[in-house]
Amino acid sequence: MADLSVVSRRDCEFIDITQKINELVPQNMKYGICHIFCSHTTAALTINENADPDVKHDLLKKLDCLIPKNESYYQHCEGNSAAHLKSSLFGVSLAVPIRNGKLWLGTWQSVYFCEFDGPRSRRVQVLFQNAEA
Amino acid sequence: MADLSVVSRRDCEFIDITQKINELVPQNMKYGICHIFCSHTTAALTINENADPDVKHDLLKKLDCLIPKNESYYQHCEGNSAAHLKSSLFGVSLAVPIRNGKLWLGTWQSVYFCEFDGPRSRRVQVLFQNAEA
Amino acid sequence: MADLSVVSRRDCEFIDITQKINELVPQNMKYGICHIFCSHTTAALTINENADPDVKHDLLKKLDCLIPKNESYYQHCEGNSAAHLKSSLFGVSLAVPIRNGKLWLGTWQSVYFCEFDGPRSRRVQVLFQNAEA
Repeated sequence: MADLSVVSRRDCEFIDITQKINELVPQNMKYGICHIFCSHTTAALTINENADPDVKHDLLKKLDCLIPKNESYYQHCEGNSAAHLKSSLFGVSLAVPIRNGKLWLGTWQSVYFCEFDGPRSRRVQVLFQNAEA
Repeated sequence: MADLSVVSRRDCEFIDITQKINELVPQNMKYGICHIFCSHTTAALTINENADPDVKHDLLKKLDCLIPKNESYYQHCEGNSAAHLKSSLFGVSLAVPIRNGKLWLGTWQSVYFCEFDGPRSRRVQVLFQNAEA
Repeated sequence: MADLSVVSRRDCEFIDITQKINELVPQNMKYGICHIFCSHTTAALTINENADPDVKHDLLKKLDCLIPKNESYYQHCEGNSAAHLKSSLFGVSLAVPIRNGKLWLGTWQSVYFCEFDGPRSRRVQVLFQNAEA
């Protein structure tokens, strides 16, 4: 069980944490599951494209258009209801298969911490379980 | 493995089930994973803010604006296609880390059953697994 | 651990993979967890209605209206940013309880592979873990 620190620098951004998690995988783990959990209600976790940074731009921009910061009917005094909704839509828990001591991701996949109300210091829990072949 | 009963009283609402789940955690479980599963297609599970009830209001209201009950092109005869989509967007399975006999949630996090087509009697499966420290 | 092949035939479609996964469950598994993982960034996994095919139609149509293929501000050169966003919204990892050798789903639930940028040949990882009763 590891408690990972993530520091965001913008209001909304996707931060690639794949490498940090791979460094935590037990060396002798042939097959397993990695549970990743985000302890915040205005952030999330996702898996998406690792190659073209334009994908991150397009996702964040489209999300902002669908769920803008302000709506006339919002009542929450902190003004970050949009971030709370984005968190529930993307989700705060992920499970990724492990094979031969690293995350068994697809060619174009990375694991991202999704900041929706930054910049902030955040925490991510990472937990490994063995599985049968 | 436990089969939890949840009774909703409105069309759409978020019901905090954190306490009910904490009561099910095996006393001797130091580190583990709690799997929570919603057996319905017009409901979901999420983790979000536990303090200000206005967050729940804002999430439900914004969801209804994005995905209203009626669209001219809906074909499903039961008239609850919006609830089915909300269910897929929020998701029906969650995994939460366990530490020292309770859910290891962030300060502001609670686990919610999300009713999108109530009121109804619903069921949630809860399952625990040990994990290494 | 199994590596499932899924072939999509349309641009966007939901493909029921419940039966294929049930065939992989270890015969002697009384209680467990099935982890399902989609190795792609323009596809996803979800659990939803297995009876009326109109639900699938309504979900895909509404998703397309919310997240159309083209937006003036999209920068990603492949033109499939909408598919990437749908993938993150639906999610690529699922965990389903196992009881008595099969997925413990609700009456109306099936597991779907969600193609958002097809037609293509896709892969889904399936992994089982025992759990205590």
